[in-house]
Amino acid sequence: MSKHIDYTLLSEKLTEFAQDRDWEQYHSPKNLVMSLNTEVGELTEIFQWLSEVESYQLKDDPQAFEHVQQELADVLMNLVRLSDVLGVDLNTAVQDKLASTIEKYPVEQVKGKAKKYTEYEPNN
Amino acid sequence: MSKHIDYTLLSEKLTEFAQDRDWEQYHSPKNLVMSLNTEVGELTEIFQWLSEVESYQLKDDPQAFEHVQQELADVLMNLVRLSDVLGVDLNTAVQDKLASTIEKYPVEQVKGKAKKYTEYEPNN
Amino acid sequence: MSKHIDYTLLSEKLTEFAQDRDWEQYHSPKNLVMSLNTEVGELTEIFQWLSEVESYQLKDDPQAFEHVQQELADVLMNLVRLSDVLGVDLNTAVQDKLASTIEKYPVEQVKGKAKKYTEYEPNN
Amino acid sequence: MSKHIDYTLLSEKLTEFAQDRDWEQYHSPKNLVMSLNTEVGELTEIFQWLSEVESYQLKDDPQAFEHVQQELADVLMNLVRLSDVLGVDLNTAVQDKLASTIEKYPVEQVKGKAKKYTEYEPNN
Repeated sequence: MSKHIDYTLLSEKLTEFAQDRDWEQYHSPKNLVMSLNTEVGELTEIFQWLSEVESYQLKDDPQAFEHVQQELADVLMNLVRLSDVLGVDLNTAVQDKLASTIEKYPVEQVKGKAKKYTEYEPNN
Repeated sequence: MSKHIDYTLLSEKLTEFAQDRDWEQYHSPKNLVMSLNTEVGELTEIFQWLSEVESYQLKDDPQAFEHVQQELADVLMNLVRLSDVLGVDLNTAVQDKLASTIEKYPVEQVKGKAKKYTEYEPNN
Repeated sequence: MSKHIDYTLLSEKLTEFAQDRDWEQYHSPKNLVMSLNTEVGELTEIFQWLSEVESYQLKDDPQAFEHVQQELADVLMNLVRLSDVLGVDLNTAVQDKLASTIEKYPVEQVKGKAKKYTEYEPNN
Repeated sequence: MSKHIDYTLLSEKLTEFAQDRDWEQYHSPKNLVMSLNTEVGELTEIFQWLSEVESYQLKDDPQAFEHVQQELADVLMNLVRLSDVLGVDLNTAVQDKLASTIEKYPVEQVKGKAKKYTEYEPNN
């Protein structure tokens, strides 16, 4: 069974949440981008001292797993609200970007190669 | 008409993308959290010198609007992939968090009040 | 009178702090980069809902100003510790980068021009 | 021999850099915090797919090591400029914070214990 995120409903509920509290005035795209950085910082805090192996096992610690779910949800809510305020259709955007990403990294060129430093161009 | 993000399909395509390139070995939750920080940094770059008013008008600049859509999509793809690797059902997580956020900020207490510094406890 | 940050002394104290607690094992460059993201997230939280004008006036709120000083200090301590573990001489690095940045943005070309979106190349 | 960062001189040069280009108008604390997030994102990009072991060996790759020095320098320049615009004496702030951090984590309580998830309080 396929799961869906009802993107329209989520956007509407988040707009209503802001309107009810008279918080729309604070939800400029610029502010929401800062808020997104804050939320991602809170998510990062959970993982900062974990080894990669431990990061795979987070589900085994119910308290940590509950916490990480909350932070992931915060990131998604912020992202949906930001897209809405910007007038971006996030679903179309992700379809387009996925297609171009697949094209950008041809299997025959990158397979089995570490996606390591040397791939990146310093942009100073 | 309601728009949906087909979360299961997106997860499957991102897994396939990683498998085809033999990149699953790099997609530990820890690494994907770092990648999420990188993507959010690229999104932030677009907004850093814009005023709040200008940030509302991004749609008027087709090049900037295309760019911001790509960065938003990158953030979503990273978030979906991370949730998948962690075993988190992002749709359930967001329903739960939205409900608890609505409860946390009662309209009668916060309406018309700026969500400003003094709400936040320093956590050192 | 010129103020200096005694970089060597600060590095030594931070190393001693980690050694005394047997925490050097957690201070890999990778982990410290994640910790830096966490600290910058906490700094960002203070500013997310402030207007630009309000952000200039933070000094007028003693509690907020104390908090922001703590977060700025956390970012610096993390940066110094990270540089030390990587074997980077941060003082030399900053001299070199400042010189190349001055060269990169010639006054006659950029003066009075908004450092806005169009300057940035999307890097996808 | 002790190395120092001449904090006053660095602040002055960065102010002059902004003044010469008529960029002071863009350097609100809020904007500089966003810029700091962007710079830290660029630093994170270098480390995202590296293992912890590889992150210790960055010095062995001259191109990567040059790049990381530039990004560390960008973070420091941004931090010094931000502190200057806010009216924060970064040197005093770091002395105070180091003292309170040492007090916050008594050796006898934390030694040999992993600074792991369970130490952190979810802050929702």
